[in-house]
Amino acid sequence: LEALLISSDPSPRLSYTTNHPEPCAVPGEVVVRVSLAGICATDLEIVRGYMGFLGVPGHEFVGVVETESSPLAGQRVVSEINCPCGTCDMCGRGWGGHCRRRTVLGIAGRDGAFAARLLIPEANCHVVPDEVPDEQAVFTELLAAAVQVIKLEPLERGSRVAVLGAGRLGRLVALVLAQTDCHVDVIVRSERAEAWCAKHGLSAVVVDGRRADPTYDVVVECTGVMKGLERAMQMCRPRGTIILKSTYADPPTIDLAPLVINELRVLGNRCGPFADALALLKAGKIPLDEMVAATFPLRDGVEAFKAAAAPGAMKVLLRPGAP
Amino acid sequence: LEALLISSDPSPRLSYTTNHPEPCAVPGEVVVRVSLAGICATDLEIVRGYMGFLGVPGHEFVGVVETESSPLAGQRVVSEINCPCGTCDMCGRGWGGHCRRRTVLGIAGRDGAFAARLLIPEANCHVVPDEVPDEQAVFTELLAAAVQVIKLEPLERGSRVAVLGAGRLGRLVALVLAQTDCHVDVIVRSERAEAWCAKHGLSAVVVDGRRADPTYDVVVECTGVMKGLERAMQMCRPRGTIILKSTYADPPTIDLAPLVINELRVLGNRCGPFADALALLKAGKIPLDEMVAATFPLRDGVEAFKAAAAPGAMKVLLRPGAP
Repeated sequence: LEALLISSDPSPRLSYTTNHPEPCAVPGEVVVRVSLAGICATDLEIVRGYMGFLGVPGHEFVGVVETESSPLAGQRVVSEINCPCGTCDMCGRGWGGHCRRRTVLGIAGRDGAFAARLLIPEANCHVVPDEVPDEQAVFTELLAAAVQVIKLEPLERGSRVAVLGAGRLGRLVALVLAQTDCHVDVIVRSERAEAWCAKHGLSAVVVDGRRADPTYDVVVECTGVMKGLERAMQMCRPRGTIILKSTYADPPTIDLAPLVINELRVLGNRCGPFADALALLKAGKIPLDEMVAATFPLRDGVEAFKAAAAPGAMKVLLRPGAP
Repeated sequence: LEALLISSDPSPRLSYTTNHPEPCAVPGEVVVRVSLAGICATDLEIVRGYMGFLGVPGHEFVGVVETESSPLAGQRVVSEINCPCGTCDMCGRGWGGHCRRRTVLGIAGRDGAFAARLLIPEANCHVVPDEVPDEQAVFTELLAAAVQVIKLEPLERGSRVAVLGAGRLGRLVALVLAQTDCHVDVIVRSERAEAWCAKHGLSAVVVDGRRADPTYDVVVECTGVMKGLERAMQMCRPRGTIILKSTYADPPTIDLAPLVINELRVLGNRCGPFADALALLKAGKIPLDEMVAATFPLRDGVEAFKAAAAPGAMKVLLRPGAP
């Protein structure tokens, strides 16, 4: 099987292979042929050792179910990434994403999508509407994470919201928030990001290094760097809310005192609802032009990872070869 | 005027004086003669340079109003510490404690209570009920901060709550939570703290260095050390709440990823309602025996600060001499 592989061998940590074992369907799971997959920031961290993951990385993808015995056979699907046990206290609450014994596609305990085929729980699959091409469907997981910003806890009507970071996730968060009645400012540093905001009718605020006024009701931190949380604390009004999307790879060395002094609420926020994401894509509400930097064949995956790691890179996609 | 004084001179930063200028009443403010004052962790930080404060420190106290023209003249009072401008957007919300231009007794822009007398806004005063002696009333500010844990956002009925840190604030937080229908565990490290919990009918859980089970709905972080936040993240269930009371003096170097992965809510939480605190004291609901380490005359204030800085020290009180 064609696949990218993370090994315990430090050089190379990431390599391309054509003889990874084929996945075999087990009860409740289906084999999916990958049509298109996306590299995300977490994948870059995983190659650097985050989570101690070994195997096939990749969790953003769209593909076709091959398992003939499944009612989904032949269907084009995307898949939630958390595979829950179904029996622990978190599963009992209906929070499979927080299952105590979960495996996670390409992140923990289970091969991911940077391969010609992978095995996923049938219950994780969402059928992709015909109106949504692969090139958009591959953004479902990331868009769902953006939707989670308004799903985990409702934002107050008319809130003034700042989105910190105009990268891949930050842009999707801004587009999702633009569907609400919140007033949204995207905090940008580059002219490219400013132009993107203008094109999509979003208010851009250019950061110029000065201390920002602490006037936002909500700040969504999507920078991926620890300085972002510090900046979020500076921009958020007393008793405001910071929604934290970034998992920092390095331990932060920032002063958390403003969090206590200003009685801020920091809400960790992770994966989100696929059904909502697909509905937004189907409705054509989320313009994804300019979101893709490049598409590589899977065999050039190592090179693709380098492209994805470039500062400010938009989404890099991977396409497996003919089966 | 007899007072302790923080000067810009590094040695000594803190000194005792008998010729600090007398406070003069201005409209809306009253002169209060200090009967008893308490040293808190913030005072220790302030002596080390936190907030860049110069002048008379001290914000926990009980005293008697001396200003004859005030309706409070002769009354025994405690005082809220934040002195708001009354006109900014935060004051407009009724959040004087978060006033954009506030001064804070003994912390920012205004002399505090480690003196024979100080000036405070009349509106900040709360009359102390006769049933509450000075030795209890001096805990009002700290107890109000503990009450704020259940005031800022209501806890869900029947929540499993862990109080991390069984110091002065942690013990008051535990006693306040014991008045609710939450199940409260106090996480303790010393036999002394364990015995205190047993005496007051509180459940103590002895930490033994192992990773705690992440099963608490709410963790209140009162340790004052940055490791406490890390431990809180380990003990809190997914989508649980961490209430942060500690303002860490040093920047933390901890991994915040669990906050995002587990979609935790971290709520900064600071000052609290004096009326509630006084009502609890009046009702005799908050046993304060064992909470006082020692009472020093104000002239021995420098020595008192050393006693207050001892590891695990309970409250150190200061009593000004005869006027």
